[in-house]
Amino acid sequence: MNKTEKVKKIIINKPLKLDCGKTISNFPLAYETYGKLNDKKDNAILVFHALTGDQFASGLNPITKKEGWWNYALGPDKAIDTNKYFVICANVIGGCMGSYGPSHLDEKTKKPIGTNFPVITINDMVNAQYNLLDEFKIEKLFSVMGGSMGGMQVLQFISNFPNKSHTAIPIACTASHSAQNIALNELGRQSIMADHNWLDGFYEENKKLPDKGLAVARMAAHITYLSKKGLQEKFGRKLQERDHLKFGFDADFQIESYLRYQGSMFVDRFDANSYLYITRAMDYFDLTKQFDNNLPKAFEKTDTKFFIISFTSDWLYPTSENRDIVIALNAIGKEVGFVEINSDKGHDSFLLNIPDFLNAVKNYLDTSYKKIK
Amino acid sequence: MNKTEKVKKIIINKPLKLDCGKTISNFPLAYETYGKLNDKKDNAILVFHALTGDQFASGLNPITKKEGWWNYALGPDKAIDTNKYFVICANVIGGCMGSYGPSHLDEKTKKPIGTNFPVITINDMVNAQYNLLDEFKIEKLFSVMGGSMGGMQVLQFISNFPNKSHTAIPIACTASHSAQNIALNELGRQSIMADHNWLDGFYEENKKLPDKGLAVARMAAHITYLSKKGLQEKFGRKLQERDHLKFGFDADFQIESYLRYQGSMFVDRFDANSYLYITRAMDYFDLTKQFDNNLPKAFEKTDTKFFIISFTSDWLYPTSENRDIVIALNAIGKEVGFVEINSDKGHDSFLLNIPDFLNAVKNYLDTSYKKIK
Repeated sequence: MNKTEKVKKIIINKPLKLDCGKTISNFPLAYETYGKLNDKKDNAILVFHALTGDQFASGLNPITKKEGWWNYALGPDKAIDTNKYFVICANVIGGCMGSYGPSHLDEKTKKPIGTNFPVITINDMVNAQYNLLDEFKIEKLFSVMGGSMGGMQVLQFISNFPNKSHTAIPIACTASHSAQNIALNELGRQSIMADHNWLDGFYEENKKLPDKGLAVARMAAHITYLSKKGLQEKFGRKLQERDHLKFGFDADFQIESYLRYQGSMFVDRFDANSYLYITRAMDYFDLTKQFDNNLPKAFEKTDTKFFIISFTSDWLYPTSENRDIVIALNAIGKEVGFVEINSDKGHDSFLLNIPDFLNAVKNYLDTSYKKIK
Repeated sequence: MNKTEKVKKIIINKPLKLDCGKTISNFPLAYETYGKLNDKKDNAILVFHALTGDQFASGLNPITKKEGWWNYALGPDKAIDTNKYFVICANVIGGCMGSYGPSHLDEKTKKPIGTNFPVITINDMVNAQYNLLDEFKIEKLFSVMGGSMGGMQVLQFISNFPNKSHTAIPIACTASHSAQNIALNELGRQSIMADHNWLDGFYEENKKLPDKGLAVARMAAHITYLSKKGLQEKFGRKLQERDHLKFGFDADFQIESYLRYQGSMFVDRFDANSYLYITRAMDYFDLTKQFDNNLPKAFEKTDTKFFIISFTSDWLYPTSENRDIVIALNAIGKEVGFVEINSDKGHDSFLLNIPDFLNAVKNYLDTSYKKIK
């Protein structure tokens, strides 16, 4: 993936011991920043991206030429106001936007690492990104935040580094990946692996792309990001540029056309092996298990204040799973706010222009920032 | 599919005009019967199967060597008591268990028809099966029943033949296939078509099988047949024959192993092209649209009494969509009973041993049968 050669990176020299037992060092972590770090260095927010996100959270993504994934939330005068705050967002390890991942070239063979890349975890991702605090000489972050897998990273970060952020905003996430979500991720992986161009993960060196399998994986995931009601309202049974059914297997319905488009666009911007590795990291995430099935223990040592957000129509990371985190924090008397936002847009809500959500984020950040001053 | 050569069939000579415009004739319809037709011929029930079902609803399926799909509900002394009732169940056209479908040999070329098979509809399926009444010289059925796509056939049957059944029991179905369900079916189709062995549908004559794509399609569907809660209770994060995560892409979790098994078993018994055709028929189903977006009109002429059943955790055909049918029938003063059964087993509930469900079916059938005597 030569197109990511020029993205901003730090090289992490300090050896990082991964959960799988291997140790990596001298690996790149690609990142972007938004806004300015103030002199007191007290206005920094570390934003974690979700499964298919990257460091280009706001503005134009120079690689895909599309708007950043959190453009609605992040930028000057927006909910995460970059006139005020200094935001850092890094591509997770395992990813494909410049950080150390399966499309990275092996130093010896000069070929992409492919499935020789180690299986990584949310914990590994967070530990890699912790190096950004040293890079910017930030003693304590103002906030860590993210939605979906980004939210899992928030939880893991606070658990690992209990006194390194004033606030934490996990959004639409869980402390323990559910059976249904493992099943859905496994579906995506099996779809990629079923593509005869996948070649056990060594497709790049063979100049092949498992694009059909990756597109199907994306279609599957995309359905889960939306709600039944939202799909019905947006698409219903509307036909695609035709007045009648065509009695064939072309896209008769708009929803079919939309899904095919989502699949085909995705393969241009995402690496199939990264999809395998990142979904695996999500499936492995079980903060509760890390603390002997006692979630409150994960947060016992922290002084971080939490604000947790869920969405009514999110069936992938439903309110109940977000509330479990609230309950764990309450159980040990930690400061935690919680809001369930009304939305028909499903899990995708955290990426969209939903005023109630964006206002909640803005108010929480701005109020909290005043308190630490 | 030579293995279905010896299954019971009628050959339908009467030309059948399909919704796509083509006319078919001299085609086979494979069926099974259970119980005995009485002298008055008033105890016959026509059972319609779902997407991947077949005529072997009860007892041992001689082809797959597995139990019939409705073994819990159908048989001597069961809810649909074959000591009392005579049950007919046919393989839908488009299917792969002996009825006219894409694996049928073309008379001229002697090769499987493949994707030259016409796109068929629920209406076409029902019209083909109507010939079974002539075959058995049944003037009026006692009941028509089925779950999921079987329920759609029930609705279409009553709409087409308003005075041909005393009762009708549509279970866990809808009058109009939703956007989410179209999306999920399209996902399955795209998965099959992405398999490089699919060969535009002409895999059989090339001695190939798109088994990987079909397995992924089945995995996707299987997830939708279960509920989030049911999956969590049954599988949770239990590991598959290991004490620790293996940090690889094998099946670490039981849910992964289970899904892979479901996929691999399915390809042994089902035809990929049939999967395309039958899902297409489901997506095309919109009884409401057939009657100018006025569902009550579909049932205006009928004297059939309805009993409609839904399941609390069925998110594929939720109670709300089943209730829409009740509302339509109530709107024109038709006799309709309705029950929502409490179950965590999701859409699959109609196939399972759920006493409340089975008792409801039994009571309704037996009480109704006394009334027509």
